[in-house]
Amino acid sequence: MHNPWFEHLKKDYVRGFPGYCGFEVTHVNAGIFETRLHPRPEHLQQDGFVHAGVMATMADHTAGYAAFTLVDASFRILTIEFKINFFKPAVGDAIVCQSRVIQEGRTIIVSESDIFACTGSDHRQVAKAMVTLMAVALKK
Amino acid sequence: MHNPWFEHLKKDYVRGFPGYCGFEVTHVNAGIFETRLHPRPEHLQQDGFVHAGVMATMADHTAGYAAFTLVDASFRILTIEFKINFFKPAVGDAIVCQSRVIQEGRTIIVSESDIFACTGSDHRQVAKAMVTLMAVALKK
Amino acid sequence: MHNPWFEHLKKDYVRGFPGYCGFEVTHVNAGIFETRLHPRPEHLQQDGFVHAGVMATMADHTAGYAAFTLVDASFRILTIEFKINFFKPAVGDAIVCQSRVIQEGRTIIVSESDIFACTGSDHRQVAKAMVTLMAVALKK
Amino acid sequence: MHNPWFEHLKKDYVRGFPGYCGFEVTHVNAGIFETRLHPRPEHLQQDGFVHAGVMATMADHTAGYAAFTLVDASFRILTIEFKINFFKPAVGDAIVCQSRVIQEGRTIIVSESDIFACTGSDHRQVAKAMVTLMAVALKK
Repeated sequence: MHNPWFEHLKKDYVRGFPGYCGFEVTHVNAGIFETRLHPRPEHLQQDGFVHAGVMATMADHTAGYAAFTLVDASFRILTIEFKINFFKPAVGDAIVCQSRVIQEGRTIIVSESDIFACTGSDHRQVAKAMVTLMAVALKK
Repeated sequence: MHNPWFEHLKKDYVRGFPGYCGFEVTHVNAGIFETRLHPRPEHLQQDGFVHAGVMATMADHTAGYAAFTLVDASFRILTIEFKINFFKPAVGDAIVCQSRVIQEGRTIIVSESDIFACTGSDHRQVAKAMVTLMAVALKK
Repeated sequence: MHNPWFEHLKKDYVRGFPGYCGFEVTHVNAGIFETRLHPRPEHLQQDGFVHAGVMATMADHTAGYAAFTLVDASFRILTIEFKINFFKPAVGDAIVCQSRVIQEGRTIIVSESDIFACTGSDHRQVAKAMVTLMAVALKK
Repeated sequence: MHNPWFEHLKKDYVRGFPGYCGFEVTHVNAGIFETRLHPRPEHLQQDGFVHAGVMATMADHTAGYAAFTLVDASFRILTIEFKINFFKPAVGDAIVCQSRVIQEGRTIIVSESDIFACTGSDHRQVAKAMVTLMAVALKK
């Protein structure tokens, strides 16, 4: 089923830095946003693994868009803070980020992001984030 | 005074993703690392502010190199986790990150990163992070 | 089936501050620990809700014992850091904490704790924590 | 100089769980709150150190009252989330918590708490927290 708000969010997601990083949107639903990156040399750190900052950016941005699916165009979503744990070095053909809203308050929304490194059928979780967001009504 | 290890870290800092992001090293001392970014359109998010992921990457990477100043080349520094708060939208001619080690254990090192948006003489703090790192001895 | 290590952990859990707080163990399995509190006036904060510190203590301590289920008596489990989000004010007949290990490394273990406020059949999540732990071999 | 709001906060601080824990207020100023605990056996964990939950409770509650100094009685301060790092095992005659507001927004306030274990003139930092708070106007 075509959802014009979700279609808008897919295009909006890759504006600016996330597009520069090469992130793509793979799935959108109410409270859910999933994205993917095919790592290139410019995504790595000094030891050849995907940089923690790449995954933190994915975790934050995807979590924010999971929240966006639950509001409408009269709101802006801002990140208040986030925390991310890195479980193991990230290497693989693709980095996948699955975010979902776990708490929807009137002002404060909390999302979780699970990040996986994938090579063929081997998917292993490499990071997890909790992201605190604020829905701010745009002035008219 | 010339410190060959600090000179090495300055060059090492910009390998891979941090170089792709355009970060520059401005100051290094024992337990201290400072970096700068002149934001370009590809660093912004959908509302025109510097993306939270750019600042998170700076906060993490600079914190890690502050820890690197306290070990030698026989160690690798890994980020276990970090937490970052965003105080206000980041706009400015430069984004400055000042990181310092606040706890140096045998295995676990904790750094703090303060991030400022600067325009002329106007410097305002826009984010702060606490970063938990692990010093891992390289196998010989 | 009787597991002597799990039985030991049930008794060990309530030594010191957690016992003073009135926490009880309700379920133990490999990588899983669940506890409960019947709130009394001394658990509340100034507005009459269960204090954030009570829930943070439960979240941390229960997460640590979830990690303990995966090691043996030759290890000590230390909390490196934790982060906890509070979703809504906690009121109820019981506060329940469900912790599980989500990443088991050689040295670093990460657990999650979900905290619920329960009144009759009404269970609502009031907080969630991510806890980073370290398994340290005891000297012999 | 007598400040009736600060005097009120000193008394308010020890209501409920913080009073049960034995915390005392030692200093109050605008954006600053300092507290102390003389550890007793019921504050310890299984290894004889002050329990992480005791310090987390102090860090959270003291941070919240640092925020309270900046609003008036028409506001309630709620903890949205906090993160705390534990630097070393806490033993000593006193545990001291120094909290200060580091970011004061219209709705969101961020405080930091530094926790020290003190024996005689030996003061060592044992933990540090960042606490995100929300000022909520009470309904009239």
